[in-house]
Amino acid sequence: MNIYQILDFLGTFVFAISGVRLAAQKNMDIFGAVILAFATAVGGGTIRDLLLGATPVAWIQNPVYLYLIVSAVALGIFFDRYIFELKKTLFIFDSIGLGVFTIAGMQKALSFGISYEYAVILGATSATAGGIIRDILANEVPMILQKEIYATACIAGALLYLLLDFTGLNFHYNTIITIIFIVLIRTLVVKYNIAFPTLKP
Amino acid sequence: MNIYQILDFLGTFVFAISGVRLAAQKNMDIFGAVILAFATAVGGGTIRDLLLGATPVAWIQNPVYLYLIVSAVALGIFFDRYIFELKKTLFIFDSIGLGVFTIAGMQKALSFGISYEYAVILGATSATAGGIIRDILANEVPMILQKEIYATACIAGALLYLLLDFTGLNFHYNTIITIIFIVLIRTLVVKYNIAFPTLKP
Amino acid sequence: MNIYQILDFLGTFVFAISGVRLAAQKNMDIFGAVILAFATAVGGGTIRDLLLGATPVAWIQNPVYLYLIVSAVALGIFFDRYIFELKKTLFIFDSIGLGVFTIAGMQKALSFGISYEYAVILGATSATAGGIIRDILANEVPMILQKEIYATACIAGALLYLLLDFTGLNFHYNTIITIIFIVLIRTLVVKYNIAFPTLKP
Repeated sequence: MNIYQILDFLGTFVFAISGVRLAAQKNMDIFGAVILAFATAVGGGTIRDLLLGATPVAWIQNPVYLYLIVSAVALGIFFDRYIFELKKTLFIFDSIGLGVFTIAGMQKALSFGISYEYAVILGATSATAGGIIRDILANEVPMILQKEIYATACIAGALLYLLLDFTGLNFHYNTIITIIFIVLIRTLVVKYNIAFPTLKP
Repeated sequence: MNIYQILDFLGTFVFAISGVRLAAQKNMDIFGAVILAFATAVGGGTIRDLLLGATPVAWIQNPVYLYLIVSAVALGIFFDRYIFELKKTLFIFDSIGLGVFTIAGMQKALSFGISYEYAVILGATSATAGGIIRDILANEVPMILQKEIYATACIAGALLYLLLDFTGLNFHYNTIITIIFIVLIRTLVVKYNIAFPTLKP
Repeated sequence: MNIYQILDFLGTFVFAISGVRLAAQKNMDIFGAVILAFATAVGGGTIRDLLLGATPVAWIQNPVYLYLIVSAVALGIFFDRYIFELKKTLFIFDSIGLGVFTIAGMQKALSFGISYEYAVILGATSATAGGIIRDILANEVPMILQKEIYATACIAGALLYLLLDFTGLNFHYNTIITIIFIVLIRTLVVKYNIAFPTLKP
């Protein structure tokens, strides 16, 4: 198990927590929380694998994801008060998750011979589609369509990764730099409340 | 055509009826009813096949499903009054459908070399994802996320099946016992209004 | 690049515009408009390819779709006033898009050995599923389930195509006749406000 695997598990866990929190907000039951956590955690990778034809999808070949998600639900339910206080820590981990999923998704797309343009999009999709599915299941307009611009952070990070890769930068350094970059952009966006202009009907 | 095929067709038909009923509740037109019936009836098997990479998906290779679903819509529209009175019968058939789809889904997953944990989940997914898609199309929070615990019945049945399989029980007996078990659990749950605890925001 | 390719690009562009317009109605931001445009334009073909197992899905192998969709979003945002005035032109192009996607989808299904019944359905799905995904993302009950009967136009067109194909009509003439037929039916339906009867709960 290397550092990327650990980061991937961490991302899965934190994404699952975000599913549990929405389930609680919508007064769902425990089982609903498990489904929402599952969809949030593996949804993005699932969409990526389906579009690529990389089936059976990745998570279904490793039971660790299941145990991670169930643990996240248990934790989210029993320690909900503490988790609320860890809001900032969760935000950082969630951003790291976005970064890891973006890079991993982009690399998988490239290994399937997909063009750079779509590899960037599939990277961002891997990171964000789980949240979209979570919001659709909870009957909400997906947050990503409104004003949270975390997908932009993913796309910017993916572009930076490609740029540094062309300069010949080592894969490991590149990945670390890109993830830090994504976390940074997202933090700035939230801190200064930066948003894209809204369309008018 | 064996007994499992007949049960599978029965499940498809009853699931389609549940799609028609929701379409009527939401004042959709006939075409909307067909789409909702179709999604409910084949949605679960479609998700299972996509995750496994078992494509073209199963139903698309057998036009019988199409004719069954269209018949269910016709029946649901012209005999809506009678069907309402058959509420209990429909509930039993619907539960049998859940059982059949769970076992068939689990077996297909196992035949693709999927682990026991995920085979159980894919079994339950085969049985319940159609209803989730139906509810999303109708712009409702999926019933399964709230308080109907039929997915739990499917998971319990899938676990029982595996247990009995380990003891060396004959496949046919095992399938029958598991389906009866799922119907029983679901009936008890509805009769005594058993529900998981709801989360608080 | 032949005439069918051009029609396909035209359809993609006009479908993307319909995504932008819904995004504007729902006060989404620019990024939300891109996602909605993307989903509308490539959603139908994606569902078709996933069901068939034709992966990686078609659009992901051609960056032109991405550039078309992004251009459509830019146009939709900067020239929204003019586009509103082009309502009738857009309607015609949108109907041509439905026709092109239906025929192309049906042909792809047939080339995968799918039966005529399901080839017709996959044709209609190619043309309409993008709009369904668009509406689900925007948290609306899909228009197609309510009273817009454009899917019926697609199915009627697909059946006409098969009929003419059996008579031995040349592929090119057949495609043109079918597309004109679909545009015509849809125009009549909208003009005379024809709708299927609505179901009662």
